Amino acid sequence: MMTAQEYIESLRNLRPRKIYLLGEKVENPVDHPMIRPSINCCAMTYKLAELPEYQDIMTAKSALTGNTINRFVHLHQSTEDLIKKVKMLRLVGQMTGACFQRCVGMDALNAVWSTTYEIDQKYGTNYHERFKQYLIEWEEKDWTVDGCMTDPKGNRSLPPSKQADPDLYVHIVEKRSDGIVVRGAKMHQTGIINSHEILVMPTMSLSLEEADYAVCFAVPSDDPSLIYIYGRQSCDTRKLEKTTVDVGNIKYGGQEAIVIFNDTFVPWERVFMCGETDFAGMLVERFAGYHRQSYGGCKVGNGDVLIGAAAAIAEYNGVAKASHIKDKIIEMVHLNETLYSCGIACSAEGRKTPAGNYLIDIMLANVCKQNVTRYPYEIARLAQDIAGGIVATMPSDADFKSPEIGHWCNKFMIGDAKYSAEERQRMLRLIETMTMGAIAVGYLTESMHGAGSPQAQRILIQRYANLEAKKALARRICGIDEDNLL
Amino acid sequence: MMTAQEYIESLRNLRPRKIYLLGEKVENPVDHPMIRPSINCCAMTYKLAELPEYQDIMTAKSALTGNTINRFVHLHQSTEDLIKKVKMLRLVGQMTGACFQRCVGMDALNAVWSTTYEIDQKYGTNYHERFKQYLIEWEEKDWTVDGCMTDPKGNRSLPPSKQADPDLYVHIVEKRSDGIVVRGAKMHQTGIINSHEILVMPTMSLSLEEADYAVCFAVPSDDPSLIYIYGRQSCDTRKLEKTTVDVGNIKYGGQEAIVIFNDTFVPWERVFMCGETDFAGMLVERFAGYHRQSYGGCKVGNGDVLIGAAAAIAEYNGVAKASHIKDKIIEMVHLNETLYSCGIACSAEGRKTPAGNYLIDIMLANVCKQNVTRYPYEIARLAQDIAGGIVATMPSDADFKSPEIGHWCNKFMIGDAKYSAEERQRMLRLIETMTMGAIAVGYLTESMHGAGSPQAQRILIQRYANLEAKKALARRICGIDEDNLL
Amino acid sequence: MMTAQEYIESLRNLRPRKIYLLGEKVENPVDHPMIRPSINCCAMTYKLAELPEYQDIMTAKSALTGNTINRFVHLHQSTEDLIKKVKMLRLVGQMTGACFQRCVGMDALNAVWSTTYEIDQKYGTNYHERFKQYLIEWEEKDWTVDGCMTDPKGNRSLPPSKQADPDLYVHIVEKRSDGIVVRGAKMHQTGIINSHEILVMPTMSLSLEEADYAVCFAVPSDDPSLIYIYGRQSCDTRKLEKTTVDVGNIKYGGQEAIVIFNDTFVPWERVFMCGETDFAGMLVERFAGYHRQSYGGCKVGNGDVLIGAAAAIAEYNGVAKASHIKDKIIEMVHLNETLYSCGIACSAEGRKTPAGNYLIDIMLANVCKQNVTRYPYEIARLAQDIAGGIVATMPSDADFKSPEIGHWCNKFMIGDAKYSAEERQRMLRLIETMTMGAIAVGYLTESMHGAGSPQAQRILIQRYANLEAKKALARRICGIDEDNLL
Amino acid sequence: MMTAQEYIESLRNLRPRKIYLLGEKVENPVDHPMIRPSINCCAMTYKLAELPEYQDIMTAKSALTGNTINRFVHLHQSTEDLIKKVKMLRLVGQMTGACFQRCVGMDALNAVWSTTYEIDQKYGTNYHERFKQYLIEWEEKDWTVDGCMTDPKGNRSLPPSKQADPDLYVHIVEKRSDGIVVRGAKMHQTGIINSHEILVMPTMSLSLEEADYAVCFAVPSDDPSLIYIYGRQSCDTRKLEKTTVDVGNIKYGGQEAIVIFNDTFVPWERVFMCGETDFAGMLVERFAGYHRQSYGGCKVGNGDVLIGAAAAIAEYNGVAKASHIKDKIIEMVHLNETLYSCGIACSAEGRKTPAGNYLIDIMLANVCKQNVTRYPYEIARLAQDIAGGIVATMPSDADFKSPEIGHWCNKFMIGDAKYSAEERQRMLRLIETMTMGAIAVGYLTESMHGAGSPQAQRILIQRYANLEAKKALARRICGIDEDNLL
Repeated sequence: MMTAQEYIESLRNLRPRKIYLLGEKVENPVDHPMIRPSINCCAMTYKLAELPEYQDIMTAKSALTGNTINRFVHLHQSTEDLIKKVKMLRLVGQMTGACFQRCVGMDALNAVWSTTYEIDQKYGTNYHERFKQYLIEWEEKDWTVDGCMTDPKGNRSLPPSKQADPDLYVHIVEKRSDGIVVRGAKMHQTGIINSHEILVMPTMSLSLEEADYAVCFAVPSDDPSLIYIYGRQSCDTRKLEKTTVDVGNIKYGGQEAIVIFNDTFVPWERVFMCGETDFAGMLVERFAGYHRQSYGGCKVGNGDVLIGAAAAIAEYNGVAKASHIKDKIIEMVHLNETLYSCGIACSAEGRKTPAGNYLIDIMLANVCKQNVTRYPYEIARLAQDIAGGIVATMPSDADFKSPEIGHWCNKFMIGDAKYSAEERQRMLRLIETMTMGAIAVGYLTESMHGAGSPQAQRILIQRYANLEAKKALARRICGIDEDNLL
Repeated sequence: MMTAQEYIESLRNLRPRKIYLLGEKVENPVDHPMIRPSINCCAMTYKLAELPEYQDIMTAKSALTGNTINRFVHLHQSTEDLIKKVKMLRLVGQMTGACFQRCVGMDALNAVWSTTYEIDQKYGTNYHERFKQYLIEWEEKDWTVDGCMTDPKGNRSLPPSKQADPDLYVHIVEKRSDGIVVRGAKMHQTGIINSHEILVMPTMSLSLEEADYAVCFAVPSDDPSLIYIYGRQSCDTRKLEKTTVDVGNIKYGGQEAIVIFNDTFVPWERVFMCGETDFAGMLVERFAGYHRQSYGGCKVGNGDVLIGAAAAIAEYNGVAKASHIKDKIIEMVHLNETLYSCGIACSAEGRKTPAGNYLIDIMLANVCKQNVTRYPYEIARLAQDIAGGIVATMPSDADFKSPEIGHWCNKFMIGDAKYSAEERQRMLRLIETMTMGAIAVGYLTESMHGAGSPQAQRILIQRYANLEAKKALARRICGIDEDNLL
Repeated sequence: MMTAQEYIESLRNLRPRKIYLLGEKVENPVDHPMIRPSINCCAMTYKLAELPEYQDIMTAKSALTGNTINRFVHLHQSTEDLIKKVKMLRLVGQMTGACFQRCVGMDALNAVWSTTYEIDQKYGTNYHERFKQYLIEWEEKDWTVDGCMTDPKGNRSLPPSKQADPDLYVHIVEKRSDGIVVRGAKMHQTGIINSHEILVMPTMSLSLEEADYAVCFAVPSDDPSLIYIYGRQSCDTRKLEKTTVDVGNIKYGGQEAIVIFNDTFVPWERVFMCGETDFAGMLVERFAGYHRQSYGGCKVGNGDVLIGAAAAIAEYNGVAKASHIKDKIIEMVHLNETLYSCGIACSAEGRKTPAGNYLIDIMLANVCKQNVTRYPYEIARLAQDIAGGIVATMPSDADFKSPEIGHWCNKFMIGDAKYSAEERQRMLRLIETMTMGAIAVGYLTESMHGAGSPQAQRILIQRYANLEAKKALARRICGIDEDNLL
Repeated sequence: MMTAQEYIESLRNLRPRKIYLLGEKVENPVDHPMIRPSINCCAMTYKLAELPEYQDIMTAKSALTGNTINRFVHLHQSTEDLIKKVKMLRLVGQMTGACFQRCVGMDALNAVWSTTYEIDQKYGTNYHERFKQYLIEWEEKDWTVDGCMTDPKGNRSLPPSKQADPDLYVHIVEKRSDGIVVRGAKMHQTGIINSHEILVMPTMSLSLEEADYAVCFAVPSDDPSLIYIYGRQSCDTRKLEKTTVDVGNIKYGGQEAIVIFNDTFVPWERVFMCGETDFAGMLVERFAGYHRQSYGGCKVGNGDVLIGAAAAIAEYNGVAKASHIKDKIIEMVHLNETLYSCGIACSAEGRKTPAGNYLIDIMLANVCKQNVTRYPYEIARLAQDIAGGIVATMPSDADFKSPEIGHWCNKFMIGDAKYSAEERQRMLRLIETMTMGAIAVGYLTESMHGAGSPQAQRILIQRYANLEAKKALARRICGIDEDNLL
């Protein structure tokens, strides 16, 4: 396994990449102040695995090699593994207060593993073996891999093949003897610039005529054909300022980028689906399912940080004992633990796939994510309530540090005199960033849309609701159908 | 194990009891039309255990004797057992659409088992061995036992010893060489008249001066000192009418009664706590914890029935394909499965007690119950929305069967002509009973107050929230405390 | 104006009617214990008009005759009138704690008044003059009139003319020189048996081929062709028991019935629409609009009673000062006053129709009703929370009055000793009836479906949302469209 | 009345002020790119008053001079005036999509007007006449005045006189023959730098020993003793970038600053309360009441913009016809119009004060604001749902305009090909700023805390709930008290 430091160095060792940020090409992403927090965040997945107290939760024994590996590169072997995954994500979410990005790779590998197995069973292809070889290397090198799914989609009311521009979904433009050439882009790629590899999957169920869009493959993140455009987010440029206080979360952050496949060549040994449209839906459902489970861990960990911030600021404000404040914090905890319950439950109800790894319960994973599209927003609202209006009107840290007016800032920003104005200032900036700043992107918007927008979960909930069985229960109870039990 | 029929017969074999209902003494409760549905409901816990397809879920291997026993009398031996308990409760809830009452005994036995063990450890008493002997008999005879906790409480702002009337909490009035004499009453006793035995526990944490209230014991339900007063509930007397259609749930129902301990004698071998005030809180927390878990099963099963009824009536009304109807049903399913997730999660996160049986995760069990105080109400509201106003304005079944006007009822009550007016009528009556009739007591009010009212859960959530740790997370993230990890 | 007593007597003077209840023909509805509470409730609209302190709110000066009339028979002449209507409904809702039924007539007369005027303007008919003559008589005789709209509807996915049975919507079966003959039924007729007259309207927008369904007319409620079937509701038969305590609301209640038009003849002077399909939608929208406003008054008054009951039971239980109890009561008040705000707002924003009376703001009236489909359920849930589980497990009043066990009931039902057990008992029964008993039909289910189900309001909200204008605002703000103001 | 241009010029004519922003002194606030949008926003209150189509709503006839004046400087003379105020605020909120700041002065003048009258009535002081003279000048000069209330407050659990630092609440430090000297600071001063004058009020009810804190006065905003520190807010520095696209709202914004009274001298003719502690609560309640009404206008106007943006982006994404999208937009409209209803209702229920101007209904104004602390958050959540994840991951405008990668941005950001990528980009930036950027401060956090935090409203709701009357209603209905009406 890599150490956190080795991980950061490994990113420096990638070939030069075309990364654009705020209209400029970034030559050294590792030390770029807007990017580095997201690298630190991902590095935490390595760091915690180094620490003895977290071995059980952060590492696992490889099902492929028997080696001890980071759980982020592990094929889940049991429901216990699935539960430990959720606990690991909560832990890293607590330690970073942000999106640490690495779960997309873990979720993708588990989804591709079982789906390729089932494609091969049906079509006699050998995707699974290819993927196994790839995965062994992945485990050994302890890669961070970007699980890459969402296409630009253009007009959402039209399928891929009916778009004005065929490139609005990633597709195969050429099949050669040694591999394929793909074109298109993927949006919202969480942590892609911090990844060693990119594992691309289709984004939706496909019909027969869309075989060119049914493609799954891996490429190195430093493939020269790739172009990256870094997404700009709320308060992103605060990271360029001299002080870190105003950033709120002083070391960690998320990352979202667009990746463009500008006629990217993929050798056959890295192609894991190629035209099997009938399996696109399965792959999407499984990846999304795992990823919807993930949110029952990471966002809960982030929620722990925000609840802690709310509890702390209540103290600094001198209102920690007010009954309405206590009640709001209880509500925040209650909502957060409900999310955690959903993460745990879909794990505990997991089952073995034909390929041997464990899949979460799809219904409950979708229920989990559906709640994640709601509760963090309410938790954030309550945090703003407890923080007070000052969370949005406080002077900049430059003012606090100004020789002319810094004393005024400190004088009037004091709350309970047991705490310094700076403590209050820092805690308020943390609440600000998590509720409407850079971290809100991960804690809120990503909670809404990551792993699929709310309506996507509702469709799955409907599909797995088994309403016919429920109607039969009702008919028997009210005497339409016979009750021959008693 | 008893069969369902044997169970019903066993109730006939109890000594005559003083049971009052609507101001009258009930001589034959087993065949009383207002009581019988609750007996049928409890009998389902025996019936399903008879059926081969439910063996795994309905039965277990006794940890005391090795015999196969009904899971309702089982000491949970693993988190898997805890999960199966939740699934069993969901199943019985689906098959009855009502409160089947028997879980209070199961939850009490598991709480008393571990608490008596810990009392003995501290005080050198032998409550645990006594209870073990009692439990062996319980298992062998496959009893239904009423776990009996809630006192009348009088003025809620005063502790037991400060009440105007000392009997407002059950207390010891005499200690004799052969046992104790107790006096008082317990309210809201779910299924007590359908029980063979009563296992009494204190209702709250107690202070040292309240030793007489720190009492746990068992008595047979046909002890001559006991007086029962059957609670009257919404629409209860419909069960006395000639037709069953208007009852909605035609065979099953709940039961709540007051039991009065009119100087009841309890021999020492049935006394399991006697003055150890410092363990009253533990016993309450554990019983309540198990019981809050239970609601993540039984009410979910009831919810399945109500969702099925809503889906069916939508079809009968011809609106099953309307997008807003589908969306409401998805929401009902989503909320119901969130409750289930909470039931599963607190089970999966259970842990072994010093006494050897498994305890649920207390935080998550309280989160589970807290959600149960909310979502069934919203599910019921959505069911009424889908049903249409007719759920509250429909003629009685006597009108449907009237020679003079029955044809009018049938003519105008038709929905989609594929279904009969009677189907629609029955399904509407089912929705009525579950949302504002006899079953609403179990599905709604009991969801609110059973296993403790909402505020009781909030207190536990606060206690287990570990806010200090969360504050430390926040302080590190915003730079008040040092982050020496990265 | 009639006095309350005269009103009750006037019902005795109606010709014998075919009224069925629980399968039996009712010969004397006025003194029938299940019907009388609803008559008392409607009588309150007369009683309060007798009292000097309510003159301003309960009476108005007729726009037709200049006489002082009951506001329930008034053509609204101003936004002040519209606001006073809401206040009147809140008042009567406070004094009855139930649905007093008379608003449907008031809402119908105002809708028919302006719609007939506009029909005449377009088609040169004389419906408006006919209706004016009818309304003068109505005012003078101070009638209670049933505004009669909702058809059985059969398969909701099909229009009237496509139903398997043409009678599932009221329609004209014969046009004669002296009048028309109609056939069909109307469901959910609130207070119809307590009415002197019935004013029938179509139930939805109609297409050209459905001219026979575009019919509006009035008939006396004792027309011999009519058949009434009384709806059965939660806990209805408690009103037949010896004691009134268990009824909760001891004098007042609602009423819902089906009326069947078994080839009813209507003379031309009482026909107010006959085939003008293009005005069916307008009439429905206006009647529904007024009626949706109404719910911002009457249900708020009912809510006041339930809030009062919750505040009282909190005192009786000894918990009135607990912060979580106070907070729940504040929430109940907040939700209730939000409903009231909506009722007031759609009135204050009313406008004059071409016919001279005032129409509420349709958008805001629909917003009002949409909230009414939600908040009373939450208020009821909070009331159950505050009440405690005893609201669903308390002995019957017959038990309280039993010589054998009455003393036990009184002993153990005591709360704070400052209050009697009976006070607690009565208050709990009131909460029971309003949240899951007979009054819940009016307070909850009627709040859901009365004046149109939730989706009906959403359609209107969409229609009046003026999204194009809102999109233009957004385009200008973000610079797509030019901002030439500054 | 000033024109918008004159208003902007008038700010240039102020004496040099000590304004600090991001640690730097600002010499020319009018042209500072971070401040100018807030000036534009306030200028809109002047601009719209210039336009003939808005005369009725934007102007009024002065009650003091009979002149036509901007409604923002008007003493409300009727409930119609109160309603027009709400409509004016909605209008300006629609035209700016931001907080236009000027309402605090209008709300302060109306509160001070009636409170000074009542102080004088009790104490024989002449504050009211002083204020009248001041107000005449205010009207004539068409000033923007900062209504200035919230103190730093320090430890919220302690009153002003018990704070470690007495300056944590503004207080009188010296009384002189010609006036008073005050010291302290006020936080969250909306638009203060865009104001000509500052009208200071106490922030809470005060006890007798806090006479020095019971002070109300006016000073010119360019008084040399004043120090201003501009609050830093989410995404504020985007306004410093070259392109305006990423700002989302390209011309308008809010402003919050701290003002420090560094021993400020106030001549007696500008002192309107000086030690009358018993009137501090009244002044706060009235100012807060008016200001809570205001939010039922301005935030509704902002909501219109956000709803328009959501409807537009749905079109650009090609999903405008999806039923779940339509339903979410309906919900947004419903919530927004509920807020508006509350704003209208507390206005329509206003009453004349002894001083002659009109006061809103305090209960309903608090209900209004309480809803404003909830619904904008839900509207914002729904807007993010509809927008899609791209709202948080989109490239910067610099990328769109980059010669190297601009074409990629435009290619992949296209939605429905009927619309340009730039339209989509701009609309997404608008949604971003309103939900988690600079405008979110005004639309969300200010909705939470402006005019008082949620708990402040709950206290008022409780105070005005009249629970005794409600309990009496309940007692009569359930038969505890006699019902002698019928």
